[in-house]
Amino acid sequence: MISCPIPKSEYENVLLAHGGGGKLTHQLIEKIFVSQFGNDLLNELNDSAVFEFHKNKLAFTTDSYVVQPIFFPGGNIGELAVNGTVNDIAVAGARPVYLSAGFIIEEGLPIDDLWNIVMSMKNAADKAGVKIVTGDTKVVEKGKADKLFINTSGVGVVYDNFNISSRNCKPGLSVILSGKIGDHGIAIMSARENLEFETEIVSDTAPLNGLVNALSKYSVNIKMLRDVTRGGLASVLNEIAASSGYGIEIEEEKIPINEQVRGACEILGLDPLYVANEGKLVAFVDDEKSEEILSVMKSLEVSKDAEIIGKVVDEHPQRVVMRTSIGSKRIVDMISGEQLPRIC
Amino acid sequence: MISCPIPKSEYENVLLAHGGGGKLTHQLIEKIFVSQFGNDLLNELNDSAVFEFHKNKLAFTTDSYVVQPIFFPGGNIGELAVNGTVNDIAVAGARPVYLSAGFIIEEGLPIDDLWNIVMSMKNAADKAGVKIVTGDTKVVEKGKADKLFINTSGVGVVYDNFNISSRNCKPGLSVILSGKIGDHGIAIMSARENLEFETEIVSDTAPLNGLVNALSKYSVNIKMLRDVTRGGLASVLNEIAASSGYGIEIEEEKIPINEQVRGACEILGLDPLYVANEGKLVAFVDDEKSEEILSVMKSLEVSKDAEIIGKVVDEHPQRVVMRTSIGSKRIVDMISGEQLPRIC
Repeated sequence: MISCPIPKSEYENVLLAHGGGGKLTHQLIEKIFVSQFGNDLLNELNDSAVFEFHKNKLAFTTDSYVVQPIFFPGGNIGELAVNGTVNDIAVAGARPVYLSAGFIIEEGLPIDDLWNIVMSMKNAADKAGVKIVTGDTKVVEKGKADKLFINTSGVGVVYDNFNISSRNCKPGLSVILSGKIGDHGIAIMSARENLEFETEIVSDTAPLNGLVNALSKYSVNIKMLRDVTRGGLASVLNEIAASSGYGIEIEEEKIPINEQVRGACEILGLDPLYVANEGKLVAFVDDEKSEEILSVMKSLEVSKDAEIIGKVVDEHPQRVVMRTSIGSKRIVDMISGEQLPRIC
Repeated sequence: MISCPIPKSEYENVLLAHGGGGKLTHQLIEKIFVSQFGNDLLNELNDSAVFEFHKNKLAFTTDSYVVQPIFFPGGNIGELAVNGTVNDIAVAGARPVYLSAGFIIEEGLPIDDLWNIVMSMKNAADKAGVKIVTGDTKVVEKGKADKLFINTSGVGVVYDNFNISSRNCKPGLSVILSGKIGDHGIAIMSARENLEFETEIVSDTAPLNGLVNALSKYSVNIKMLRDVTRGGLASVLNEIAASSGYGIEIEEEKIPINEQVRGACEILGLDPLYVANEGKLVAFVDDEKSEEILSVMKSLEVSKDAEIIGKVVDEHPQRVVMRTSIGSKRIVDMISGEQLPRIC
C-alpha cells in the first residue's frame, strides 16, 4: 500500500473546488489519478487520448455532465453532453464518429424531462453528424443524485497531419479565440439565481467539429486546439502555458465578449476570463497563416466573432499575461478555487 | 415535439425498478433511448457496439457504476468499474485495450477512500492488461450524489472470426455458464445489511478477457457470449431468448452455486437466478464442441467451475424454462422490478 499522496494535513476530504478546473483539480488529477494510472497517453492530459490503433490514429475521450439546473437558457444537460464530447474529440484534431451515453438517474425524475433531454441529445448528435451507439442506465434512490447525470464518451478519427499538443506551442504562434466568452456560465448562473437581464443570455453550447473540419486544411499550421470550458479562457491558457514551457500574452481589448455578459459579470462580481463556455475554442497557429485562418473561422456562423487575441512569447515562461485596455499588464493566474460549481 | 412514448398514466416518474435490469429497464431503453437514438449499432442492444472502423472491427462500450456501498467484501467500486467494462468488451468477442474513467465525487468523500479506489483500478487494469488513457473529474455538493459514481468506457479490437450476436442462437447450441452464481449480489447485500455468514461471501468481480482470449480459437463455434451481471442469469438468458426468437432450457442441478450463497438466498428470500454476478459469462456454443470448450474453461482459474447448463430449443420460443431437480419444469421469467438496487 502506497500512502495517499495528498496528506490529511493538507486536504482530508474532496472539496467542491477539486472539481472546479483550477489548481485543486490539477493537484487531484496529478497526485491521485496520474500517479496511479500514468501512461504516455494519459500523461498528455489533453481532453482526448490520441493513439495509433491498427494503423488508424484515433481519439478517445470521456466527460461526465452534472450541470445544475438540467434545463437552462439555450440548452439542457443532454445537448451539453453531446456537444461537449464532440468538442473534446474535435480539438484533438479529429472527426468525432461514435458516442456512448451513460445515464445516472435520480429516482423520481419526471419521465417527460428525460424524454425531452433524450430528444435534445438526438438533435445535437444529428447536428454534429455523430451516432450514439452504446449506452447504460442506472437509477439511484431519491436524494442520492441530483435529477440526472450523463456521461458521454466518444471515438473519432484524427485528420491527416494534425498533431495537436500544447508542447508544440512555441514563441511566435498566434492565439485565436473562436468567439465571445462567458455566455454559458452566465446563462447557468441566471437560471440558478433567477436573474433577469434585458435580453436573455443563453448558453453558447454548440458543436465545434464543423469548425475543426474547416480548419483541417491548415493542419500543419495549427499546433494546438482546446475548447474553452470549465475554468474559462484563463484556466485553459494557463494550462497550455504551463505545459508548453512558454509564456502567453493576450490583449484585453481583443477578447470578444457580449456586452450583456460583461454587464452581468460586473453585477455578479465575476471575471469573464474565468467563466465557462461550451462552444468556443482557442487555436494556436503559425503567425503567417493567422489572418487566413481567422477569415476561415469568421466565415462560419459558430465562429463568426473569432479574433486573434494574443501570442506565445519567450517572456514570463508558463505565465499568462494580459495587456489591459489602459495599457498596463497583469498576470492572469489559474483559478484556485471554484467560481461556479457544476457548470457542465 | 413528439410526445413522450411512456404516458404519464403508465409511469410519470423514473422508479428504482427502471434501473434494475428487468422489464421496466427494457421499456425505458426501448421507448425512450432506442426510439430516439436508434441506429444499426445501438439497436443490437449488446453491451458493446461493434463496428468496422477504417478496416478494423472495434468494440466500444460504456457503463456507470453506482454500487452501494463503495467498498464491499471482495472488492470496491473502482475494481468493479474496470472489470465490468473489460468484460463488456470481452463478451463482444474483443480484446479490450483502452479505458476511460469519469468520476462524479460527492463533496466530502475522504481523499484516502478515493486513493484506495484508484489504486484498485490501477491493479485491475494491470491484471486485465488494459490502460486507462483518458478521464474526467466532477465534484457535486454534499447530498447531491452518494460518495462516488464512476463511469468507465472502453475500446477493444474484435478477434478474427468472432461474430457474437444473440440472433445467432439457434436450436441445438449448448449453453455454458462459466462459474458459480450469486456471489456478488450476496456480498453487496451482506455489506449493506451487516449480515454475517460462517464464511465470508465475497464478490466474484474479475476480468473475463483472459477467458475470452482462450476461447477465441473457437470463435467460429461460439455464437454468443454475455456477462451475467445485473438481473442475474435469469435476466440475461431471457434477453437472449427474446432476441433470438428461440427457447432456452436449463437444468437446475447443473447450475453451479456456492452452498453459502444458496443458504444466504434462502434466508433472504432471494432467487439466486436473479442475483448479480461480476465475473461470470454464458457462452452459446456448437454442441459438438461444447465439451472441448468446457474443458478449456475449466482449465482456467476464473472459470474452473464452468458447467454446461442447458441448450437452445425450438420449444417455448422466447422463453426460458428450467427443469428443476425434482423433474418438473418452470418458466424462468425476466425480473420485473428491482431485486437489489445499486448492485453495480
